[in-house]
Amino acid sequence: RRHHPVTVMWDLPFLPFCALLGILGFVCVAFVSAWCQYWRGGFALDGSTKTFNWHPVLMVTGMVVLYGAAALVYRLPPAWTGPKLPWKLLHGVLALAAFTLAVLGLAAVFHFHNEQGTPNMYSLHSWLGLATVLLFSCQVGAARVPPTPKPPGPPAPHPLPSLQWLAGFSAFLLPWAPAWLRALYKPLHVFFGSTILMLSMASCLSGINEKLFFSLKNGTTEYKLLPPEAVFANTLGLLILLFGVLVLGALARPSWKRPDADSPDTRQVPALLWGH
Amino acid sequence: RRHHPVTVMWDLPFLPFCALLGILGFVCVAFVSAWCQYWRGGFALDGSTKTFNWHPVLMVTGMVVLYGAAALVYRLPPAWTGPKLPWKLLHGVLALAAFTLAVLGLAAVFHFHNEQGTPNMYSLHSWLGLATVLLFSCQVGAARVPPTPKPPGPPAPHPLPSLQWLAGFSAFLLPWAPAWLRALYKPLHVFFGSTILMLSMASCLSGINEKLFFSLKNGTTEYKLLPPEAVFANTLGLLILLFGVLVLGALARPSWKRPDADSPDTRQVPALLWGH
Repeated sequence: RRHHPVTVMWDLPFLPFCALLGILGFVCVAFVSAWCQYWRGGFALDGSTKTFNWHPVLMVTGMVVLYGAAALVYRLPPAWTGPKLPWKLLHGVLALAAFTLAVLGLAAVFHFHNEQGTPNMYSLHSWLGLATVLLFSCQVGAARVPPTPKPPGPPAPHPLPSLQWLAGFSAFLLPWAPAWLRALYKPLHVFFGSTILMLSMASCLSGINEKLFFSLKNGTTEYKLLPPEAVFANTLGLLILLFGVLVLGALARPSWKRPDADSPDTRQVPALLWGH
Repeated sequence: RRHHPVTVMWDLPFLPFCALLGILGFVCVAFVSAWCQYWRGGFALDGSTKTFNWHPVLMVTGMVVLYGAAALVYRLPPAWTGPKLPWKLLHGVLALAAFTLAVLGLAAVFHFHNEQGTPNMYSLHSWLGLATVLLFSCQVGAARVPPTPKPPGPPAPHPLPSLQWLAGFSAFLLPWAPAWLRALYKPLHVFFGSTILMLSMASCLSGINEKLFFSLKNGTTEYKLLPPEAVFANTLGLLILLFGVLVLGALARPSWKRPDADSPDTRQVPALLWGH
């Protein structure tokens, strides 16, 4: 009772916050696209810097904005009641979309480096960024649990790996992984979920900084004279930071967590699927 | 009861974790010092790059290692029982030491830039880093609450600002700020505490990346050929990241929080100070 006024004062409503976050995410994507289009020559797939330009756009859109949206799915009040399965699917679809854009974004920069004869993976930005995407791939991959051991016998003639992968995914997505395994894995998933977003932010900021030193070294106005491009891209960096901090803050806020966050989370569905 | 095995399995003991973190913090300071001493020419106060070299050492030591130590004070099990005042003092002393090193670290880079005729505050790294230290100064400064309104009358002849500041500090450090104000401020302090550490990490990583592009542009082996200095400093970046992520993880861990974290936190002391 003593703390009542405190709770009231900081009790932000989630949905307006979410709308603000959506606008901010949109502004981040618009800023990074405008930077690459207006100052860096636009987009192409020819191995030139126009190919490189896909890299910042895809990484910011995938690893920051879509990733942040995926992380916040379970905080939506409608996700608090009723079956969790549709929200798991939405979380999975957004995370897979983020992961796909990240892989394409990496492909863009590797293709550009290889075409230009530039070595890959030397800068701290590249180490940090690759570590981020690798951690994310573990996070996505861990949704696959090992299937129940096969009976001994000849291997199936056509293993259809993509279907197996989909089936493996559904182990976490759908409720047929054992409850103890899901309960064991969940805190790891949550911890690495926030960690990966922090690493994404640090990767984006170091990448924008690095790109500005490269691009504004010769030719146009030097970076140190702070031309409009530098102000614009520095601002993009701060907007990405603000977006990431707000997502992490929203994730950490106790009052925005699904009330049954620590209870076995798929009780609603087994009856439908397994008939018990 | 269903979740008992989970709790047991991830229940790390805090003190060995803290020892590991201490070693890791020491290694970060040793790495950044060795980088600047061995590859960047050592330290001096002459306005040359030897003056700049204080910048990375002071920022990593202050804004990452000492800051992390300050943040974790209340997680020490001995801080969970008995009066909170000694732990508040330790938290305050560590935070002030971190802040002092950060200010000296900024002074080093501004002095270097001014001596070399280089503009200040143009890179994203500089915007990010200054934002981090400014947020930290708000965090430190907010420990000063406005004193109770003075009775009307002539101003005191010698306001002794430094003493006033110390007195202001003690408003949060000591229990004479009203409980509602402390309760209102605490969640903000906790949120910005973690946020500032994230910004510090991003600042350090973008700064190391930037410094390597500057230093390895000419003269010695280029950055892109990944000479030993680049491997060493990239590794320093990843160690700083690991340290920061472990501190943030420890701060977020519910089972490591002081059990009465949400209750008015200075009940033990007023009796001594105010006699009630």
